[in-house]
Amino acid sequence: MIYLCDMNDRPIILVTNDDGIISPGIRALAEVASQFGEVVVVAPDSPQSGMGHAITLDKPLRVIKVDAIEGVDAWQCNGTPVDCVKLAIDKILHRKPDLCLSGINHGSNSSINIIYSGTMSAAMEAAIDGIQAVGFSLLDYHFDADFTGAKKYATQIIEQILKHPLPSGALLNVNIPKLPVEEIKGIKIARQAIAKWVEEFDERLDPRGNSYYWLTGKFVNFDHGEDTDEYALANGYVSVVPVQFDLTNHQVIRHINENWDLNG
Amino acid sequence: MIYLCDMNDRPIILVTNDDGIISPGIRALAEVASQFGEVVVVAPDSPQSGMGHAITLDKPLRVIKVDAIEGVDAWQCNGTPVDCVKLAIDKILHRKPDLCLSGINHGSNSSINIIYSGTMSAAMEAAIDGIQAVGFSLLDYHFDADFTGAKKYATQIIEQILKHPLPSGALLNVNIPKLPVEEIKGIKIARQAIAKWVEEFDERLDPRGNSYYWLTGKFVNFDHGEDTDEYALANGYVSVVPVQFDLTNHQVIRHINENWDLNG
Repeated sequence: MIYLCDMNDRPIILVTNDDGIISPGIRALAEVASQFGEVVVVAPDSPQSGMGHAITLDKPLRVIKVDAIEGVDAWQCNGTPVDCVKLAIDKILHRKPDLCLSGINHGSNSSINIIYSGTMSAAMEAAIDGIQAVGFSLLDYHFDADFTGAKKYATQIIEQILKHPLPSGALLNVNIPKLPVEEIKGIKIARQAIAKWVEEFDERLDPRGNSYYWLTGKFVNFDHGEDTDEYALANGYVSVVPVQFDLTNHQVIRHINENWDLNG
Repeated sequence: MIYLCDMNDRPIILVTNDDGIISPGIRALAEVASQFGEVVVVAPDSPQSGMGHAITLDKPLRVIKVDAIEGVDAWQCNGTPVDCVKLAIDKILHRKPDLCLSGINHGSNSSINIIYSGTMSAAMEAAIDGIQAVGFSLLDYHFDADFTGAKKYATQIIEQILKHPLPSGALLNVNIPKLPVEEIKGIKIARQAIAKWVEEFDERLDPRGNSYYWLTGKFVNFDHGEDTDEYALANGYVSVVPVQFDLTNHQVIRHINENWDLNG
């Protein structure tokens, strides 16, 4: 029904996010992507931060073509970021895009944040499907964040991934520090820092005297390695972490085979 | 407010799932866990399959003590499986449990299914917090599935993890084939098979003539290795995949450093 032609052999670039189709971050990313190919935006109709790799099984999905981003074909979807990628491929593009870009997220997805991130899960969904994929995040939650630095470095990274595609099974997690573009020192290829969130639920009473909780927390970085994404960002660099969705811990296969008795 | 005592130095075992607190699978797991320690169940009040690592940021969370599982302290929560783990630690146990068990899921979480699975994300959340953690899934979607084999092998695995804890940063993804217990051949420690879901959205028209879509799909296993979870399950074994939440692809760090020009 909906079909997209690739008239000039330019790459088809799917752009999505988790902040929703009206966020300035996705506009910035669509603008950057337009330099490199035919851009199609398929993004959630409402904020989906913290949705991780959720998919929608219990309600029907809808996609609506919208005039949300100037000069770009755009659809909004009532599902999660991962749903958007699945629908884009199967029902909007009717083919795999050549590249999937997710973001630019308003807020960090460095280190352990990747696990909770709808932005990164959308990129991962594309990678699972064999598509080159990158998630971009700017360390600034504000709606009016300055995307100048993010756009500059996204341009460099997209240029490189189109020239030198990633091996199968990989995608990139790119985070950009909250700094004026001239103060960003460059790009560091990094590993995911060992970090976590320590919960501090905010407990309140409703008008009937029943407790309810708001999830809040404190980010703790346990990792002092100078090769991590957290180190790169804290020192004024853009961090690029190559990511995989094969979660096998091969060292622990050996640990179990050597230590466990499973014949009981 | 709610406090749990560990009176006999028995381990505190948190049991959760994604099918919801009334599913037979969580009852089976709580029963097995009770042999090894003081069991506390904190689980979603409704089915949360496919929720991945979603957390709830946009609405308040509630936990209610319920009489859902005989002889076991149990709470239901209106959040995701990951929310349940966070709330259990911070607001119910007021400490980390010694072990977190998730499941027994009604349906497979082998290979790529781990990425979408609320069951496995709950276990992963515990592992991120430094807790020994295992997710269990039975390859049978039915409400009245036979958990005899699953219970037998869960018992063996819990015994081993308590004797020989996993190294930090690891958890286990255990899948049990849909077979009579006497036909299950044993346990294989395996790696995650390379597989994916091929989408086949079911498109329908609502009474107003507008399209909507139900997510469906076909599971495709590309991986013919004999060391995978899919191979183990297809051959009558319980599969145990050691899993990590450090998603760094170290090989691709080298690939990028050798091939990309990021000084542009």
